[in-house]
Amino acid sequence: MSEAALTLDGWYCLHDFRAMDWASWKLISEEERQAAIEEFNQYLDKLNQVHEAKTGSHAFYSTIGQKADFMLMILRETPEEIHELETEFNKLKIADFTIPTYTYFSVVELSNYLASDSNEDPYQNPYVRSRLYPELPRTKYVCFYPMDKRRQGNDNWYMLPMSERRNLMRSHGEIGRKYAGKVKQIISGSTGLDDHEWGVTLFSDDMLQFKKIVYEMRFDEASARFGEFGEFLVGNLLDQEKFAKLLEIR
Amino acid sequence: MSEAALTLDGWYCLHDFRAMDWASWKLISEEERQAAIEEFNQYLDKLNQVHEAKTGSHAFYSTIGQKADFMLMILRETPEEIHELETEFNKLKIADFTIPTYTYFSVVELSNYLASDSNEDPYQNPYVRSRLYPELPRTKYVCFYPMDKRRQGNDNWYMLPMSERRNLMRSHGEIGRKYAGKVKQIISGSTGLDDHEWGVTLFSDDMLQFKKIVYEMRFDEASARFGEFGEFLVGNLLDQEKFAKLLEIR
Amino acid sequence: MSEAALTLDGWYCLHDFRAMDWASWKLISEEERQAAIEEFNQYLDKLNQVHEAKTGSHAFYSTIGQKADFMLMILRETPEEIHELETEFNKLKIADFTIPTYTYFSVVELSNYLASDSNEDPYQNPYVRSRLYPELPRTKYVCFYPMDKRRQGNDNWYMLPMSERRNLMRSHGEIGRKYAGKVKQIISGSTGLDDHEWGVTLFSDDMLQFKKIVYEMRFDEASARFGEFGEFLVGNLLDQEKFAKLLEIR
Amino acid sequence: MSEAALTLDGWYCLHDFRAMDWASWKLISEEERQAAIEEFNQYLDKLNQVHEAKTGSHAFYSTIGQKADFMLMILRETPEEIHELETEFNKLKIADFTIPTYTYFSVVELSNYLASDSNEDPYQNPYVRSRLYPELPRTKYVCFYPMDKRRQGNDNWYMLPMSERRNLMRSHGEIGRKYAGKVKQIISGSTGLDDHEWGVTLFSDDMLQFKKIVYEMRFDEASARFGEFGEFLVGNLLDQEKFAKLLEIR
Amino acid sequence: MSEAALTLDGWYCLHDFRAMDWASWKLISEEERQAAIEEFNQYLDKLNQVHEAKTGSHAFYSTIGQKADFMLMILRETPEEIHELETEFNKLKIADFTIPTYTYFSVVELSNYLASDSNEDPYQNPYVRSRLYPELPRTKYVCFYPMDKRRQGNDNWYMLPMSERRNLMRSHGEIGRKYAGKVKQIISGSTGLDDHEWGVTLFSDDMLQFKKIVYEMRFDEASARFGEFGEFLVGNLLDQEKFAKLLEIR
Repeated sequence: MSEAALTLDGWYCLHDFRAMDWASWKLISEEERQAAIEEFNQYLDKLNQVHEAKTGSHAFYSTIGQKADFMLMILRETPEEIHELETEFNKLKIADFTIPTYTYFSVVELSNYLASDSNEDPYQNPYVRSRLYPELPRTKYVCFYPMDKRRQGNDNWYMLPMSERRNLMRSHGEIGRKYAGKVKQIISGSTGLDDHEWGVTLFSDDMLQFKKIVYEMRFDEASARFGEFGEFLVGNLLDQEKFAKLLEIR
Repeated sequence: MSEAALTLDGWYCLHDFRAMDWASWKLISEEERQAAIEEFNQYLDKLNQVHEAKTGSHAFYSTIGQKADFMLMILRETPEEIHELETEFNKLKIADFTIPTYTYFSVVELSNYLASDSNEDPYQNPYVRSRLYPELPRTKYVCFYPMDKRRQGNDNWYMLPMSERRNLMRSHGEIGRKYAGKVKQIISGSTGLDDHEWGVTLFSDDMLQFKKIVYEMRFDEASARFGEFGEFLVGNLLDQEKFAKLLEIR
Repeated sequence: MSEAALTLDGWYCLHDFRAMDWASWKLISEEERQAAIEEFNQYLDKLNQVHEAKTGSHAFYSTIGQKADFMLMILRETPEEIHELETEFNKLKIADFTIPTYTYFSVVELSNYLASDSNEDPYQNPYVRSRLYPELPRTKYVCFYPMDKRRQGNDNWYMLPMSERRNLMRSHGEIGRKYAGKVKQIISGSTGLDDHEWGVTLFSDDMLQFKKIVYEMRFDEASARFGEFGEFLVGNLLDQEKFAKLLEIR
Repeated sequence: MSEAALTLDGWYCLHDFRAMDWASWKLISEEERQAAIEEFNQYLDKLNQVHEAKTGSHAFYSTIGQKADFMLMILRETPEEIHELETEFNKLKIADFTIPTYTYFSVVELSNYLASDSNEDPYQNPYVRSRLYPELPRTKYVCFYPMDKRRQGNDNWYMLPMSERRNLMRSHGEIGRKYAGKVKQIISGSTGLDDHEWGVTLFSDDMLQFKKIVYEMRFDEASARFGEFGEFLVGNLLDQEKFAKLLEIR
Repeated sequence: MSEAALTLDGWYCLHDFRAMDWASWKLISEEERQAAIEEFNQYLDKLNQVHEAKTGSHAFYSTIGQKADFMLMILRETPEEIHELETEFNKLKIADFTIPTYTYFSVVELSNYLASDSNEDPYQNPYVRSRLYPELPRTKYVCFYPMDKRRQGNDNWYMLPMSERRNLMRSHGEIGRKYAGKVKQIISGSTGLDDHEWGVTLFSDDMLQFKKIVYEMRFDEASARFGEFGEFLVGNLLDQEKFAKLLEIR
């Protein structure tokens, strides 16, 4: 057996994508629509309070294309909180006018491939903590995709010795560092929790950087030989004002 | 032909996942909702009586993400009882407000890879019986996934000699034993019964242990080269009180 | 080109799986439900008359899990009769309360891999006739799955010489014979007729035998290297009384 | 680069499969049903006029199993005519009672694998014209399936030299010729037009011949190593009388 | 790591495919239909103004087969504009009578495989600009398909050295040039933005050229060994008059 990678695990994470049922949304009265938006804003306010208290975090983006109209990414300490927030959303009036299109459940993760040899408890390290319990940024754009490491014939990631995996991840990380300041990346592990092994969430003020980083990495052996990718979803930053405008029916 | 593995087979098992049709559920009156929940609770009471009489067992969990809102895992002596309970649920009022999203049918199984050489009838062995006719635990979290052993080019599990499969399963089992006390695992076989060869149900009081055990096992040759995995569903423990709260509309 | 296998072909066969639309079924009155069931029973009576006259046959089973609630397997001399019976079912009242979930079209088949060298016309041989125009049994359980022979890299069934395929099928058949008296198997060919190359229908009074025979065969090279399997559906025997009970709303 | 095969291209072709929404169809009055059928018959009359004028052709068949209830295969000179006929059908009353289940768009094709060396313009050759602009037969049965040539590891059709592809196609064609008089085959190319590379439509007065020809060809290297097949749909000949009977509600 | 290809990136691009809900469209009054079409025409007018101002572009085509009834391809400077136009369409009356069937999000791209060695800023080169910010043609036909470069065993595009990829792309480009004047091709990159790595949109006044160019390229190693193709959608040019006729109910 190959030496298993070890992980540090932070907040639980749910990505929840919803399409609007536009035809039904137009059917109700302007008052009902306003009430639904206001009720949703109260929900958002609660998320914002937790975000500011740094006891959790979230991101709220519209989604381009028919895959969804908007998405909420929510980070919390426990699976119970995640499920409560998901259910609370479902009970909102606005949820009746949405069509669930995709969710992904994972936990923010750091792997030991790039770990230092220090003896200190990493969960006490402030830098590590800032990555395991991240304050999600409010960049203009977001990108989410799930992925796996391939196990196919000679391209079997999990059969590689630790040293080889470590080298591949180091080279991979170097590409990532070239994008420092342009792209912020949150890796969340989902082996045993959802259908892929990881979720990757990218944040940037330049949508093009998502294409550039993912394309450049694809030429790197860690992705070229071993990356298997699920679907890609991108979107634009939302806030209460933009969301009201998105849903406004004239 | 390779020597076929032999199995001991216990109770039949149905995993039944349901999403709530929240918009319709909100439309009916509070009285109707209460009546539906009470009727469902009577159904649960009957399951609980069998569970306590140890003539069957079940587990009841909410489900995280859009894949479902809750799931029932039911163990019974016969396929007829399984089908009756499934149909009885479908006839409940609450079923009209659920959307069937996934089921899996299997039978609790022990394989002979790790069997002792004893001559006694294993079905009389109390330890074996406790595993074939298990009392499902009420841990805080559950994880379910179906899986197959790969048959692809040089990675063909079913073409391996018995001794090699036994060694691989032994190493695999050692990882499992490291999680003793943290994760309880029920293996149910479904070759010839449903679309994959096995269902795996994990129980734990720490959701993170699902990720840890499945990830660690993935580096083990039995999974790395030979494991093919279906979808993963995880959730939080439910009881009548929690279920009422989950469905409560204010 | 490899020598093609030859087949003897009997009755055409349709497997038709339906889920109940339980919410709608509950909405109509008890009188309407009774009328729908009675009308369906007349349809079943006609099938029974043909079955008794041995000019065709059928099997009627409930289905476990959300894949369907019941299935009809119908054997007839011509594709026209098959289509007429399918359409006649669609015109029944009860069909309005079902959701079509799966069908499979094929023709009962014997291959020449195990054929004798006799010069007689096999279609006149009573044993052959009993297998091509079978009277479907009324065992307690049924199992259906479609399958293909693999054509992938070095595991290409259709590139093997006839002698090798014959040896593999002979060994495969030997496993089958071990289950004589426990499992009755109907093979129907569907190359050119439906999405897989064969449909396999197993009948048994012990559901566990489906798991045992399919699992044991999977270690046999014919399956291990060359079998590709579609979805598996299992169920319990129905008759008019059991069907009325299945559909009964209190 | 391998030498590309050249093609002769004839009429554009749309296969359009529809399932009946039986529950809705039963709900309307007998008069409405008759009116819908009569309106559809006028549509069919127009198709028949073009078929008789040999400026296009079509075939009209019921479909066995839940994949569809009937299909129209339409051949026309231009993509505009194809789209107009598709849209005209959608505007018919009867279309409101159908569920679109599958379409395939292609163009009738002859490849140069089996071409003569003649210098004449093949588009002036009467035999070639009869195959590019075929009068579709009214056999009792039809079979349609889309297919690709495999590009996988060592089994990559498009990397083979022209001479090898020609030999494989010649051997393949010899099997086809054995079925002359029993099966009529229309090949239509769809690379760049729809999801597979070809559509194959078979016509026969004996449904069993579809199974025999496709199965026999599967042992031929062109199919065994290089054929990838989509879904198979088969059906029985329809005319106005049979269609009225198919849709008749008593 | 292989040398990554570099790209020049132009306008963002959304392909939006919609099927008509014909049954509902027929149900409303002629006045409502006219109002919906007129409102949509105002939307189109705005697209046309941008197209003429060359600050963006779009194409509007019907779609053959059940995959969709029409499609809009929209090019804009920013993801925000793309999302606004998508949402504006969803708020139109006509959108209530459409079923979203497919979208694809990408950015117009030129790769450096065929780049000159010039030192000038390519974004100032008028020829490059005309390709990155293209005025979409109004040819009679359109073809769209997404694609990937394969990463499978020995056929792994991203593991090839740059020089080999460059040679393969050069040969590929030569085939493209043979179709100059017959087919106009827009390549848009979507790695990190949508589910495939590229979208390809072809424009021609002869539908057959789509089949010819894609088929000929398939014999070229760049496609034969390394091309993976998604679904293909083709259609006929629309304008306001043709669209009114498409939607006209008599």
